[in-house]
Amino acid sequence: MTFDAPTFDALWADLEPVGRHPGTGGYRRFAWTREDAALREWFVGEAQRRELDVIPDRAGNLWAWWGDPDAYGPGLVVGSHLDSVPHGGAFDGPLGVVSALAALDALRARGWRPRSPLGIAMLSDEEGARFGVACAGSRIITGALDADRARSLTDADGTTMAEAMAAAGHDPGQVGPDKEALRRVGTFVELHVEQGKGLVDAREGEGSAVGVASSIWPHGRWRLDLRGRADHAGTTRLTDRDDPMLALAAVLATARTAAQRHAALATVGKLRVEPNGVNAIPSAVTAWLDARGPVERDVRSVVAEVAAAACTDPVEESWTPPTDFDTVLRDRIAALLCDAGGPAPVLPTGAGHDAGILSAAGVPTAMLFVRNPTGVSHSPHEHAESADCHRGVAALAGVMEELA
Amino acid sequence: MTFDAPTFDALWADLEPVGRHPGTGGYRRFAWTREDAALREWFVGEAQRRELDVIPDRAGNLWAWWGDPDAYGPGLVVGSHLDSVPHGGAFDGPLGVVSALAALDALRARGWRPRSPLGIAMLSDEEGARFGVACAGSRIITGALDADRARSLTDADGTTMAEAMAAAGHDPGQVGPDKEALRRVGTFVELHVEQGKGLVDAREGEGSAVGVASSIWPHGRWRLDLRGRADHAGTTRLTDRDDPMLALAAVLATARTAAQRHAALATVGKLRVEPNGVNAIPSAVTAWLDARGPVERDVRSVVAEVAAAACTDPVEESWTPPTDFDTVLRDRIAALLCDAGGPAPVLPTGAGHDAGILSAAGVPTAMLFVRNPTGVSHSPHEHAESADCHRGVAALAGVMEELA
Repeated sequence: MTFDAPTFDALWADLEPVGRHPGTGGYRRFAWTREDAALREWFVGEAQRRELDVIPDRAGNLWAWWGDPDAYGPGLVVGSHLDSVPHGGAFDGPLGVVSALAALDALRARGWRPRSPLGIAMLSDEEGARFGVACAGSRIITGALDADRARSLTDADGTTMAEAMAAAGHDPGQVGPDKEALRRVGTFVELHVEQGKGLVDAREGEGSAVGVASSIWPHGRWRLDLRGRADHAGTTRLTDRDDPMLALAAVLATARTAAQRHAALATVGKLRVEPNGVNAIPSAVTAWLDARGPVERDVRSVVAEVAAAACTDPVEESWTPPTDFDTVLRDRIAALLCDAGGPAPVLPTGAGHDAGILSAAGVPTAMLFVRNPTGVSHSPHEHAESADCHRGVAALAGVMEELA
Repeated sequence: MTFDAPTFDALWADLEPVGRHPGTGGYRRFAWTREDAALREWFVGEAQRRELDVIPDRAGNLWAWWGDPDAYGPGLVVGSHLDSVPHGGAFDGPLGVVSALAALDALRARGWRPRSPLGIAMLSDEEGARFGVACAGSRIITGALDADRARSLTDADGTTMAEAMAAAGHDPGQVGPDKEALRRVGTFVELHVEQGKGLVDAREGEGSAVGVASSIWPHGRWRLDLRGRADHAGTTRLTDRDDPMLALAAVLATARTAAQRHAALATVGKLRVEPNGVNAIPSAVTAWLDARGPVERDVRSVVAEVAAAACTDPVEESWTPPTDFDTVLRDRIAALLCDAGGPAPVLPTGAGHDAGILSAAGVPTAMLFVRNPTGVSHSPHEHAESADCHRGVAALAGVMEELA
């Protein structure tokens, strides 16, 4: 084939301006928006350049196949997502899609052909930034997210997911579990920028450009309703106050100390204050607690201690049990990625991914991580070094060569 | 005159439904809204029933005169405001206006006539709930609030005060200092529900239905900009975080302890979190600190300690120095209101009032407070006993008889 492959860097440069805030450099690429449409168009164009067949599924995920999985049996799929959190970074998601395309190009340049169908996936609405449910695309096709609930989710403007899909040309009536799409996926491998500093610290501080995921930590979010009594800030004696901000102070301080004690993570990232007036003691404060960690019992202890500090009952809004990726696949990949430093580091993550959803649905699944020098993610400062990205492409190409 | 005076209770009942939330009982009576128009119409109607001449001023405050102050010299004015905070109570403001009308009726029923012009005032936009500046009506006519700044203040929907005034039929071009209106006011007396429990505890716990204000505490508001670094809640190690919620915890805890130590009040009633996402360590938290107290130095110390706890420089958004009401007038009224318990208690307040603005502009001014059994204010639970309201009317009538 005479396809003149653009380099990883050229593909990366194509995506760079889409949804990027010119001042801060932060990205806003929400599902079923104009930016999302531009990203989908880019993906389909790159697939067509490579003569891949793009098959959308019922949730709007795009699967670009080399070889017909319906004729020749399930195949290896590599890929990730292109959407972002508000004010997100460039790497979370796109690195996996761009690396998949670049790895395919590298293999083809060597004259390689797969023994079985090979797919590249662009999964839809992974961040859930617009409609509040993360991994919506993979959750819909696996049935983890009910179709009616998905359709009726609303964004901040009151637009439903069904309306947003329809406006973007995807029939919301199709939304639902998609066994046909899943049956095509024999194995799924997602490459992702690491969102912590595990690879920086791996190998006793020597570091490693690429690693393999062992598991996704159990994680959940809880709502804490802190109630008080509205009153005048200028005239109510301290002793007469029922000020929910004191409970909030306890929540914020305990979230940190309890997480430290239990070797877990706890974050209060979202607050609502009522009536939120400068001279009014609040009648209520709502705080959302995100807690995660390697051990479920410890995560539960953190939540219990934070809630106890505020004398409130936590309301569990979501809970995802631990995901252990396929052990055989994981060890095979780690061995494959041996370099002078030894096998690739195997490490857990606290972040949810489509790979976790597919794994929980029974698809043999693995993840590769690319080193993040600062560990910063979900931020315009998210970064990976160019050399590490190239090593990620090479690693993914090696995995594809071995598994496809 | 054959005017058949409605009682205090009948006047009170007329006002009760205007802007009242049917579920919670909280009031929403913002300046230059439909509710505000209904309240103005009610006030003008009651003035006309009593054959008072209503003279609006340049800020839209309404002055209802018995006797022509331009012909017969400045007179005594009694009154207050009718607008509310969001979700406010029934008493803050309206008690003073209704009591003024009822006191006038009571005096007239006895055949009393004033020796000099007597006015009843409905001051505009005291709470500043819509445009953010408290006592806007009195500040505009005294020049404490610049006319251009007032016109360009915006509400939450982006409507300017000028647009809101124009829509309500008040020419915003008129807005500005109004020496003519102020020259008519020889003395100003505002009756107000107390917003703390000073009168409950007065006379060594015996309590008193009515008291007299000595001063308004110095008070101000400060903005605290707490900066952090946006990051992923699920993957960023605790030691790698720069989470502004920890600074917020310190702000909230220190606001209480510093206020206790300095015998002042400190309140954090308003917060803004960015990006305010459940799984995102915030990049920034903004907290507004309201601080007040009897001694300016102590208030400043509270603010300095709270800011130091968060390692930030406080931004002073407003500062009002102490207001000491006219001492001669205050003592005269306290003596006049002697009852079996002795002279009326004289007590300070932490709340700002139009009376404070007029006093600062050189108008001899006094305030009467009516007992608040719970001290709760700026809340639907704000309350004063009916018997105490009636004692307030009698006290105000006594003051009017003495001063007009």
